[in-house]
Amino acid sequence: MTAPVLKASELAQRFGLELRGTDRNVAGVGTLADAGSTQLAFLANPRYRAQLAQARAGVVVLRADDAQHWPGTALIARDPYVAFARIAALFERLPAREAGIHPSAAIDASATVDPGAHIGPFVSIGARSRIAAGAVIGPGCIIGEDCDIGEGCELQARVTLLTRVRLGKRVRILPGAVLGSAGFGLAMDAGRWVNVPQLGGVVVGDDCEIGANTTIDRGALGDTVLEEDVRLDNQIQIGHNVRIGAHTAMAGCAAVAGSARIGRYCLVGGAAGILGHLEVCDRVTITAMSLVTHSIREPGEYSSGTPLMDNRSWRKNAARFKQLDRIARQHRAGDKDSE
Amino acid sequence: MTAPVLKASELAQRFGLELRGTDRNVAGVGTLADAGSTQLAFLANPRYRAQLAQARAGVVVLRADDAQHWPGTALIARDPYVAFARIAALFERLPAREAGIHPSAAIDASATVDPGAHIGPFVSIGARSRIAAGAVIGPGCIIGEDCDIGEGCELQARVTLLTRVRLGKRVRILPGAVLGSAGFGLAMDAGRWVNVPQLGGVVVGDDCEIGANTTIDRGALGDTVLEEDVRLDNQIQIGHNVRIGAHTAMAGCAAVAGSARIGRYCLVGGAAGILGHLEVCDRVTITAMSLVTHSIREPGEYSSGTPLMDNRSWRKNAARFKQLDRIARQHRAGDKDSE
Amino acid sequence: MTAPVLKASELAQRFGLELRGTDRNVAGVGTLADAGSTQLAFLANPRYRAQLAQARAGVVVLRADDAQHWPGTALIARDPYVAFARIAALFERLPAREAGIHPSAAIDASATVDPGAHIGPFVSIGARSRIAAGAVIGPGCIIGEDCDIGEGCELQARVTLLTRVRLGKRVRILPGAVLGSAGFGLAMDAGRWVNVPQLGGVVVGDDCEIGANTTIDRGALGDTVLEEDVRLDNQIQIGHNVRIGAHTAMAGCAAVAGSARIGRYCLVGGAAGILGHLEVCDRVTITAMSLVTHSIREPGEYSSGTPLMDNRSWRKNAARFKQLDRIARQHRAGDKDSE
Repeated sequence: MTAPVLKASELAQRFGLELRGTDRNVAGVGTLADAGSTQLAFLANPRYRAQLAQARAGVVVLRADDAQHWPGTALIARDPYVAFARIAALFERLPAREAGIHPSAAIDASATVDPGAHIGPFVSIGARSRIAAGAVIGPGCIIGEDCDIGEGCELQARVTLLTRVRLGKRVRILPGAVLGSAGFGLAMDAGRWVNVPQLGGVVVGDDCEIGANTTIDRGALGDTVLEEDVRLDNQIQIGHNVRIGAHTAMAGCAAVAGSARIGRYCLVGGAAGILGHLEVCDRVTITAMSLVTHSIREPGEYSSGTPLMDNRSWRKNAARFKQLDRIARQHRAGDKDSE
Repeated sequence: MTAPVLKASELAQRFGLELRGTDRNVAGVGTLADAGSTQLAFLANPRYRAQLAQARAGVVVLRADDAQHWPGTALIARDPYVAFARIAALFERLPAREAGIHPSAAIDASATVDPGAHIGPFVSIGARSRIAAGAVIGPGCIIGEDCDIGEGCELQARVTLLTRVRLGKRVRILPGAVLGSAGFGLAMDAGRWVNVPQLGGVVVGDDCEIGANTTIDRGALGDTVLEEDVRLDNQIQIGHNVRIGAHTAMAGCAAVAGSARIGRYCLVGGAAGILGHLEVCDRVTITAMSLVTHSIREPGEYSSGTPLMDNRSWRKNAARFKQLDRIARQHRAGDKDSE
Repeated sequence: MTAPVLKASELAQRFGLELRGTDRNVAGVGTLADAGSTQLAFLANPRYRAQLAQARAGVVVLRADDAQHWPGTALIARDPYVAFARIAALFERLPAREAGIHPSAAIDASATVDPGAHIGPFVSIGARSRIAAGAVIGPGCIIGEDCDIGEGCELQARVTLLTRVRLGKRVRILPGAVLGSAGFGLAMDAGRWVNVPQLGGVVVGDDCEIGANTTIDRGALGDTVLEEDVRLDNQIQIGHNVRIGAHTAMAGCAAVAGSARIGRYCLVGGAAGILGHLEVCDRVTITAMSLVTHSIREPGEYSSGTPLMDNRSWRKNAARFKQLDRIARQHRAGDKDSE
């Protein structure tokens, strides 16, 4: 398999871009700083416009406004980053995953595998589960009972869907992710924990993507739900009965506790946390490592935490945090005294 | 396999509950808001008492105090949530795991597997390890050397016990968990790291439960220990030589650094951290995302962090945090001036 | 396999230590508090010197300064902890991993496996990947396409290298780690996410160690890089195109967002976070659960967060945090008034 070579004019036509300058062959993509004469680069952020002066890329994708600063071959795009993403996909070397079942796979007699699906080595598929056409179940994946894998899904490797997980179409799951394991439901009885059975499942909408080693618990009663086009990075934890609205994206290590409801088009920063049973409305951004402790009803950006300092200064200021209420009350008293 | 149908009177007898109203068939469980006429629901929190007016459940488990508000069939329980948990377990559809060894399993000649254990596909069991009767080792689990799996343990799928891991009875481990990998022990020698050998193991008491993708390191000298009935949610990290007291529960993404000792009946919130070599006494609650930086000697609830705010307000307040010590000192000076 | 017995004099000679007192047999190692007469212990931290009075160890490794307090057999070391680490390694019982390929392994015809490598059960190796002599690929490991595993690497069990991962020599990777999965690159186009192809790889230098369930994404354009002797604990997340300098160590649950550059000899505490596109210079220490929100140009120790308090006090102080800016402004106004 060799990388393709494409003409800039072909790319222009395929993605609805305007070609300016000499048509050229493109054999790959690169950053504006590093791309060579056979590669295509992009300029999306005007802050990097000065890099055009040194750029040696064969073709640059950029906005019409920036085109005057680039004497070489250009592809004019309304959104250069999106255009670049689509072009770069043509140069991605993807492993071949032919339809068929690897002889080592262990598939329950009651499971259904479409002949157009790919089942890799060391895959286990449990009772009553179904794999649709075009789905790729990579090496070491384990699919338990009563799961449903839609058309074109890709479970890359070593993904576990434990039980009652239903994936829409074109869902992509990265290695090590676990969906459908029991939610953390406990009751204390006479000094010992009793498990509360987790009878629900997990429902994942079309075009979702789930990162490496991310975990999504199944619901206790009812399901844990990701609406369509939700994007979860690595090592995210989603508790039972959480609902995440369409097009919401979460960065690595974020965590959402049970029964929280998150709106559409939200952005959750890395290692941010959302407590259980809260509601977060549409179009909310949570910055990294913030903790959402109450429901959010207004779109906007929200944060918690303190700024980074050198440890010596931090120690002094942090110690004062413990006195804040006293200081504030004295302060107010002082105000009153001076009234 | 079909779901069972049980009479309310049978449930009453089985779990020591009082039946009020007409006896009815129960074919499943649901929430008070959603359960239908063949389902059983529960009311544990008096806050939701108003839902009884709209409820259509066939049977409701509730406290005697709440029974007057429910005209239908009731099961009276001292703790409705516990009673519900026990009843719901009867309706859980569990996969069959017959005793026997899947032909694909790779088992070392020196390992011992009880004939009453279930060993799934793609399971690897290392030298000198032992699997007791009634244990379930699900697909893709890897058990290394010198491990001991007690009666009735359930390693659901793709669990790794690396070396010297001893599980008591009825321990349940969710997919992707890793126990017994080397603790993070390092010494710096002439500018390079030297590994400190991790010669201990991991000991897990009866009835513990360990969540998906949770990691528990083996001890350096001596063991990492979970006493009985410890409950760990997903993606928790337990460092080497940690000891966790019986009946303690930790929510997802919590982390405990090496050699910390945590008491019995503690509750650790999601993404909370506990530094190494600390001691936390019995019956301590740590709220979500708090960091325990010193030993805790008194039972109670502990927290750190700042409240969530809109980002603009947060920026202004967070900037002042850097001046806290100066403000507090000026404040005190001001007090003195005014004396 | 039985544990070795070694003479103190042999250990002295082998590691360049000075033997004081009677030569003795050493059959194992232990802590100063617990080691018995056939075991060797160490004293590195002078704070524990008082333990020497009760110690029953056969041999103690300690500094010359501390030797006067120990009447028994001693090995004098400049750095007792390093000496102990090297001695303890002699007593570690390591599983045998003979060269050869387990019959269950699924290896692509275009992959290259050195005859001196060990390939365990249920291992999958993809197209064009290469495994060097002395490498150990433990049970359940999955190596995708275009990976390169250097001499003496150890992938302990259930490790996934998805694509374009190049390991130097003697890299050790603990169970559940995922390297080379796609970075989290997204562009929004007409209300839907578009994946930005992740065309780079992951390059890991010699002698690195990567913890259980840690994830390291491959680069978008260019590679994610760990220089030599980097030590990552469990459940760490490294985003695409991050670069980590030689000899840097990170504790469990730390997270580094995309394109951050971290220097050499840094120490990153547990659950600490580093935002994307930042630079952290050499010899920086970040304390546990701190968030690095700006580049760091000076070596030293850095922190964020607030101290742990009982929940009642915390609530009062945390509420005041929301008023900090107002308080500070009033305070300043008050200062002005009094001028």
